[in-house]
Amino acid sequence: MPVTVAEIEAAAERLAPVVRRTPLLSSPFLDEIAGRRVLVKPECLQHTGSFKFRGGWSAVSALPPDVRARGVIAFSSGNHAQGVAYAAKLHGVPAVIVMPRDAPRLKVANTEGFGAEVVLYDRETEDRDEIGAALAAERGLTLIKPFDEPMVIAGQGTCGLEIAAQAAACGVSEADVLVCCGGGGLTSGIALALERHAPGLRARPVEPEGFDDVARSLAAGRIERNDRMAGSVCDAIVTPSPGELTFPIMQRLCRPGLAVPDALALKAMAAAFVRLKLVLEPGGAVALAAALYRPETVAGDAVIVVASGGNVDPAAFADVLREGA
Amino acid sequence: MPVTVAEIEAAAERLAPVVRRTPLLSSPFLDEIAGRRVLVKPECLQHTGSFKFRGGWSAVSALPPDVRARGVIAFSSGNHAQGVAYAAKLHGVPAVIVMPRDAPRLKVANTEGFGAEVVLYDRETEDRDEIGAALAAERGLTLIKPFDEPMVIAGQGTCGLEIAAQAAACGVSEADVLVCCGGGGLTSGIALALERHAPGLRARPVEPEGFDDVARSLAAGRIERNDRMAGSVCDAIVTPSPGELTFPIMQRLCRPGLAVPDALALKAMAAAFVRLKLVLEPGGAVALAAALYRPETVAGDAVIVVASGGNVDPAAFADVLREGA
Repeated sequence: MPVTVAEIEAAAERLAPVVRRTPLLSSPFLDEIAGRRVLVKPECLQHTGSFKFRGGWSAVSALPPDVRARGVIAFSSGNHAQGVAYAAKLHGVPAVIVMPRDAPRLKVANTEGFGAEVVLYDRETEDRDEIGAALAAERGLTLIKPFDEPMVIAGQGTCGLEIAAQAAACGVSEADVLVCCGGGGLTSGIALALERHAPGLRARPVEPEGFDDVARSLAAGRIERNDRMAGSVCDAIVTPSPGELTFPIMQRLCRPGLAVPDALALKAMAAAFVRLKLVLEPGGAVALAAALYRPETVAGDAVIVVASGGNVDPAAFADVLREGA
Repeated sequence: MPVTVAEIEAAAERLAPVVRRTPLLSSPFLDEIAGRRVLVKPECLQHTGSFKFRGGWSAVSALPPDVRARGVIAFSSGNHAQGVAYAAKLHGVPAVIVMPRDAPRLKVANTEGFGAEVVLYDRETEDRDEIGAALAAERGLTLIKPFDEPMVIAGQGTCGLEIAAQAAACGVSEADVLVCCGGGGLTSGIALALERHAPGLRARPVEPEGFDDVARSLAAGRIERNDRMAGSVCDAIVTPSPGELTFPIMQRLCRPGLAVPDALALKAMAAAFVRLKLVLEPGGAVALAAALYRPETVAGDAVIVVASGGNVDPAAFADVLREGA
């Protein structure tokens, strides 16, 4: 069953008591670089440091109480894990996160800090899905997929509802909305929300160069895959391919996808530091990079940028400041 | 004439079309460090990267139109300069900022970037006040002082109105509100706003250790001065003494002042980076430092922190991340 805007609106009601309504930020210095007005939606300020809390809360809160009480499970070493873990913690239900044994210690600690039980597996000798299926069966846990899941898409779409209202308040009714894109949960959710609530705003996915499965899929009219999964600093948004649920939504609503090289994502991180006082991770900065450094690929007097996350290692961020700022 | 809450409310009306209503942020990790709920008001996300835009806009917008049209002047190499410059630019009136010739090039460029004419003077051979007075007389400019100025205090107080509403929405009616404090414009403005709109919230100034003129003045019941003006990384909030207008307000409304060593301000910057995805400057982090690392000096189940600014040099910030995170 396809996701509809009604499900996004229902998710917004469930999220209302807890979600952070992130502001819409700007800087005359960024406007000057881009040659147009740049409005930035900083989802790095969302609970757990990324938009993923929206989808996590939407999914956990949508479960029937008896099912929810048994707990949830997710496979992730990143932002989705933290979003699901914290949503479960706030609901007072267990969360199990399955991560590879070689995941960075900090990510494990953060996920545990948000209240989850982390189960580690060996990538070489163990099968993640088998471990997860066994745990889920044994404890009655519900699997929450990172993007190809209606309630997750609905939760991410609440960001689009806020953009629609905030852009209108800024007098912007026609603009591209650039969205950092992995599997397409955020992009497709925002696109659905804008279709109803701000039809002059058009969601466009932005990916790292060389990992532009969504842009190629949109161009080809069918799901295309990335050749490889490693090799970009924007690892948080590298996924094999758009989802079975997210792709048809993007195909219907999203204009051509964009891709930026890693170097421009890092440069955009430095710009966000200096001009917006925001911490962005590389994968959360690709949309800003496109707006600032590929202005010829965007039309109109204004552009809206979703800065999707800020979970970046301090040492890596320090390198960006030394080299890029 | 003393500043009243009515002037803060009037300033809020003038600010409404432009000011950024900064959110109230939190992290379970910070709560755990502090041993209580920590709510952070990130004024680093305000226009120009600090709360100073509030006072700048309030002062510029309060001038009679014919006076305003001739322009404004300020002495500052820091956040007040940028706040006044941008407020004047948005009003379409000239701003002259008088800065020492040895001010960092980046600060000069930023102030010019916000639309001001920067006039440099030689600290050794020229008198700042003479230069300013001559320019003001010649061009009919209005001087906007950084804190001891009713319309500036009223503007900073709008931050307190937002805190009152946001704390209530979070269910917090009794708490200390820790405010990074230089001359006391922000602290006294917030204190006045809270007195009327959230009487269970108590503003308390936080300063760098060794430069705690406000805390000593509050303890002594009369204005005390700092022995020196240099030697803290928190340079943005080092002032000679509280103001003639700000001190009586703080004496009436603010509980004992706090002071934290530079090392804890830097540690709080790292915590804000990791847990809130915010860029703070050292002087904008002292209140968070007190909340996190001096919890015994605060009472209650929750503490509110004003993170007042984020205008920090990238290289200095990189050092903080390498050493403190």
